[in-house]
Amino acid sequence: MRDSRIDSIFNCKSLALFGSVSEGKLGRALIERLIDGGFDMKNVYVINPKGAGHLDSKGYKSVSELADKKVDLALIASPAETVPQVLEECGEAGINSAVIISSGFSEAGNNELEKKLVEAAQKYSIRFIGPNCAGVANTKNSLLATIEAKPSMGGISLISQSGAVGGLIMHLSTENGLGICKFASYGNGADLNETSLLEYLIDDESTDVITLYVENIKDGRRFMEVLRKATAVKPVIIIKSGRTSSGQRAAMSHTGSMAGADMVYDAAISACGGIRAITVDEMFDYAKIFAAKKQMAGKKVAIITNSGGPGVMTADMCENAGLTVCAPTDSLKSKLQEFLPSYAGLANPIDLTVGATPEGYAKALSACLEEYDAAIVMYVGTPHLQALPVANELAKVARNSDKCICALFEIGSDIEEAKQVLKDSGIVLFPSGERAANALSKLAEYEQHKANRREINLCPDVESMEISCHCGRTSLLETQAMRLLDSVGISIPKNFFAANNHDVVKACNEIGYPVCMKVLSSDIIHKSDVGGVILNIKNDFECTEAFNRLSKLQGFIGVIVYPMLDKGFEVMMGFVRDAQFGPVMMFGMGGIYTEVLKDVALGIAPLNYEAALELIKSTKCYEILKGARGGKKADIDALCDILVKLSMLPFMYENIQEADINPVFAYEDGAVVADARILLSTGDKIEKEWC
Amino acid sequence: MRDSRIDSIFNCKSLALFGSVSEGKLGRALIERLIDGGFDMKNVYVINPKGAGHLDSKGYKSVSELADKKVDLALIASPAETVPQVLEECGEAGINSAVIISSGFSEAGNNELEKKLVEAAQKYSIRFIGPNCAGVANTKNSLLATIEAKPSMGGISLISQSGAVGGLIMHLSTENGLGICKFASYGNGADLNETSLLEYLIDDESTDVITLYVENIKDGRRFMEVLRKATAVKPVIIIKSGRTSSGQRAAMSHTGSMAGADMVYDAAISACGGIRAITVDEMFDYAKIFAAKKQMAGKKVAIITNSGGPGVMTADMCENAGLTVCAPTDSLKSKLQEFLPSYAGLANPIDLTVGATPEGYAKALSACLEEYDAAIVMYVGTPHLQALPVANELAKVARNSDKCICALFEIGSDIEEAKQVLKDSGIVLFPSGERAANALSKLAEYEQHKANRREINLCPDVESMEISCHCGRTSLLETQAMRLLDSVGISIPKNFFAANNHDVVKACNEIGYPVCMKVLSSDIIHKSDVGGVILNIKNDFECTEAFNRLSKLQGFIGVIVYPMLDKGFEVMMGFVRDAQFGPVMMFGMGGIYTEVLKDVALGIAPLNYEAALELIKSTKCYEILKGARGGKKADIDALCDILVKLSMLPFMYENIQEADINPVFAYEDGAVVADARILLSTGDKIEKEWC
Repeated sequence: MRDSRIDSIFNCKSLALFGSVSEGKLGRALIERLIDGGFDMKNVYVINPKGAGHLDSKGYKSVSELADKKVDLALIASPAETVPQVLEECGEAGINSAVIISSGFSEAGNNELEKKLVEAAQKYSIRFIGPNCAGVANTKNSLLATIEAKPSMGGISLISQSGAVGGLIMHLSTENGLGICKFASYGNGADLNETSLLEYLIDDESTDVITLYVENIKDGRRFMEVLRKATAVKPVIIIKSGRTSSGQRAAMSHTGSMAGADMVYDAAISACGGIRAITVDEMFDYAKIFAAKKQMAGKKVAIITNSGGPGVMTADMCENAGLTVCAPTDSLKSKLQEFLPSYAGLANPIDLTVGATPEGYAKALSACLEEYDAAIVMYVGTPHLQALPVANELAKVARNSDKCICALFEIGSDIEEAKQVLKDSGIVLFPSGERAANALSKLAEYEQHKANRREINLCPDVESMEISCHCGRTSLLETQAMRLLDSVGISIPKNFFAANNHDVVKACNEIGYPVCMKVLSSDIIHKSDVGGVILNIKNDFECTEAFNRLSKLQGFIGVIVYPMLDKGFEVMMGFVRDAQFGPVMMFGMGGIYTEVLKDVALGIAPLNYEAALELIKSTKCYEILKGARGGKKADIDALCDILVKLSMLPFMYENIQEADINPVFAYEDGAVVADARILLSTGDKIEKEWC
Repeated sequence: MRDSRIDSIFNCKSLALFGSVSEGKLGRALIERLIDGGFDMKNVYVINPKGAGHLDSKGYKSVSELADKKVDLALIASPAETVPQVLEECGEAGINSAVIISSGFSEAGNNELEKKLVEAAQKYSIRFIGPNCAGVANTKNSLLATIEAKPSMGGISLISQSGAVGGLIMHLSTENGLGICKFASYGNGADLNETSLLEYLIDDESTDVITLYVENIKDGRRFMEVLRKATAVKPVIIIKSGRTSSGQRAAMSHTGSMAGADMVYDAAISACGGIRAITVDEMFDYAKIFAAKKQMAGKKVAIITNSGGPGVMTADMCENAGLTVCAPTDSLKSKLQEFLPSYAGLANPIDLTVGATPEGYAKALSACLEEYDAAIVMYVGTPHLQALPVANELAKVARNSDKCICALFEIGSDIEEAKQVLKDSGIVLFPSGERAANALSKLAEYEQHKANRREINLCPDVESMEISCHCGRTSLLETQAMRLLDSVGISIPKNFFAANNHDVVKACNEIGYPVCMKVLSSDIIHKSDVGGVILNIKNDFECTEAFNRLSKLQGFIGVIVYPMLDKGFEVMMGFVRDAQFGPVMMFGMGGIYTEVLKDVALGIAPLNYEAALELIKSTKCYEILKGARGGKKADIDALCDILVKLSMLPFMYENIQEADINPVFAYEDGAVVADARILLSTGDKIEKEWC
């Protein structure tokens, strides 16, 4: 259900502007932008201590003077310290929607003032955008309640944490052939933020495509829930910046050091069908292609060109982006031969050469669209060629097709006219074939997501417990970790704990020689680095000798004894708790390769079987697990089973911080955990029960 | 020494245009382009059967009529079949420079006609560009002898195999802020081509930056030689297209299947200090930054901005591109604090916030340039801010600095004026901070190359032999391969050949149990897949049993017996012969990981020690070889030694086609080849001597 208070922000018919409108003041800039946007300025009421208005907009000393008027929105640009009081007055006057441009709140360290603001809003049930934001716009309502530039009108809405990025995108929208519908810069996001605004746009009929610029997301799981709902009905393109510097968490384990925050965002966004853009140019290109509302059911792209070089470069980029530039079938080839000259290239790219005619272009496009999922048409003219006749013929084909057609059209005295004809026919223009290829790949990705939407469970229904104890350690001993894994049904090897000479001999005999013995110590992180792992112990004598050796190691608590395991293919699994997205699973190549090759994939926990399989498939080591080069196949089902079970642990035990299961040995039949490290939240204690 | 005949092409003062100049004909288009370029049309003589000229350019029926005139260049647009005769006539008339626009030669299957052309040219010592090309331009000579658009004037020269790509680049040069000096589209390259034109531009004083678009290179080694010479004096930016589809060579071995042609181009270009661009946009960005002729001695970049979001995105891209966005030192921080307000962000990006002043920008830039190697200045305005005062202050700083300063300047009524001021001061403008970051990384790369130029030896001085024999096989038996490696001093394990029961027992005892036995068979490619490798043979009985088992395998010739080797870290090495670049070395992770992880690097053979080390360092497995996570260090010197020696083999034996040495076991001390496959050119025979 749409919140009418958010509606009132974007679709307001009248607004009260709080702040000075003197020359050089923020209020004056806002008046100018509102005029530029075409808003009816008689419905803008200016409120400041002097009661000074500007041009058509009358001034008042207090909002109480507006009792006889209907005011939909408060646009606040008054000094920070006055804003909570302004909100109170708005509440009293029955205005329950606000946009707060004023800065000087939490971003400047004034958390108290921002808290007051939120309290005032809550008291009067006011929904607001800001503070410290660049404002909002709605081109369909001629509303430009922002300090930023006026954009072209269209179907793309933009939510931006950064005012400047939002302003830049709106400013560049015209030259990039984009039309903007709604814009909101939410600044500190003290009330409305990326998630609530995204949710609002889901049902907004004038928004065809949602674009989002974020630097951080407050509640990752809630965001995912809303994002998933949104992508079911319209594409959502997301720039998440701070990609390289933010992923600096304590490197306590493989999982911890590798699950960089940016990879987590990637996993979360792609699980929900969001399209991630890295640069503003990419965002433009993706938004443009989605805004055309054309289809692309598969990945096959036809390239039709009048020049070899640009065609080859476009084909390169298509293949790089995961699209298929396959040759036409024999029947299509015959068809093309009917009307194309003998010197035309009939492989894909279809090269009509410099002798290309308007009819040749149109017929080739028409024929290719029957077989391919999309087409890129390239026209590189010279000053003595005419582009318009080509554009006219192509436009006829485009108007009769649902499939996505992109074009590069450059050079010629009539080129701008030709471009307009193409654009009007639904063809999407790009400044290069490469950019068209890249954008098409995102269209294909989104269509594929929609065709294969998977259920995701962001909030598993399990009772959460704490593991607590009095030993002062913050990681479970390996014996404890193994018991915990066993308790959720994960396959572990037989093992015994022993703390003295008598018990260890008994344990070894219970397991049966040869055995493996590892030290348990709260001081040792990497056991094998300090000689804490002894393999292939063959008899009681060697057992005693090994135990004596291990008992001299620092922080010795006891040993764990295992049977010698067959070496399967080594993979690693684990989870961390991300500050924004909660438990995140990792899967990858195990052993010494984990950190060097970084062949790992992340998925938001919990995982079901399909999600676990997808995680495994997205690593390179999947090729090895499938049985590369005549090697043995690994039991991938068994690995999925462990991943699914492991992914529930962080929900069952709220103080498990990280788990690092490395290696898991994968066999042709089954898989078994060969080592496990489980870390608790700092400060938590481990109960004797687990010792 | 410059070839005066090539000089005459670009610097001609008069030219003879061969071909019809009637409406719609190619000759007319060329006349129009020449006029557009500003050439003195009275010095253009038109030659066609009718003797028809156009406007200021007089027509003649034959070049012989021009006996009293000095003609520097023949510009030929007459029908293909007339062109050899035209060249003959030019030769007779003393014209020895030509540009042949006409098509219908080898590109249309008429190889004979092209051969005639070349013969005619050789007879008269004529140097020519084309045929089937888009022509040439030299803005400094007002020469636009091309069908393509007129570019802006500047210091960037462009050599393009594709006329359309060349045309597109010239057409877009103005809007991308680039100035073109010389342009040549060489088409079929029957005489002058990418290499000879590149060589010409090395000493061309008006060319500051060379850009090159190629689809294939005829003689890779010669090209490398010229490219290396060129990069010593000016940057060379190369687009090599056909990246994804062309690398389809016979997949006879790991090395063969993985050394895709595109990776070879990468290795060759980077070894010579060339800068590779993937898209035309990238080429523009790189050319622009090089054309500014500023310095960047290291990788440290300061980002100075008035808005957080765009700054963060730029920092992300810097780090992604290998640049360093480190925080300022304490002393610089104190300096900045002296004049920046307390709310400014002093980490890097230096965020002056929306309250940024022109003086703040200039002082911050000035201070940062003392500590950083380059700077990106970002100004994202709003419609009510003034950009020009900021630009004026920044320009003053830029004019006094040799260091590279890039800028993004957007939004504001005076923004175009501001941009011009920045440009005039030597600041390089980009449409986004990300593109600035990417371009800067290439500047840093080139400066680094210049500082560390390594000798390369493209033509080793060894006597080349053939390995020949009468067995009809096209790969050496493993015993032969091992002997060959041994002959160049590569460390191989002790081994014996045996073809009967008596010899095999003798061989095993000679080596000492336990041993490893492998089948030798010309029919078997992957020995272990068919049970052709038996490990850990402990005594004479097992030896006989193993031999009997192997002797039943298809194509059995004998066995090779080795001692059991300690398993070191497995790497692979090899070489292939690339059609363009000749012998190319490969190094990478060995064993099952080779093909799955594709962690390999290529280098043009032969390698010296430094090049071999660089090759190893450019793989991920270098981290493991160095001793990752407490693992043992491998003897990298020993690996380099094998690489260097192996890289000479293809020069010593001209019919060795490929070598695939996988694995090589790397130990803490030394390294040894554990398996080797050496393929001969198809059809070559192997001499008994090697059996």
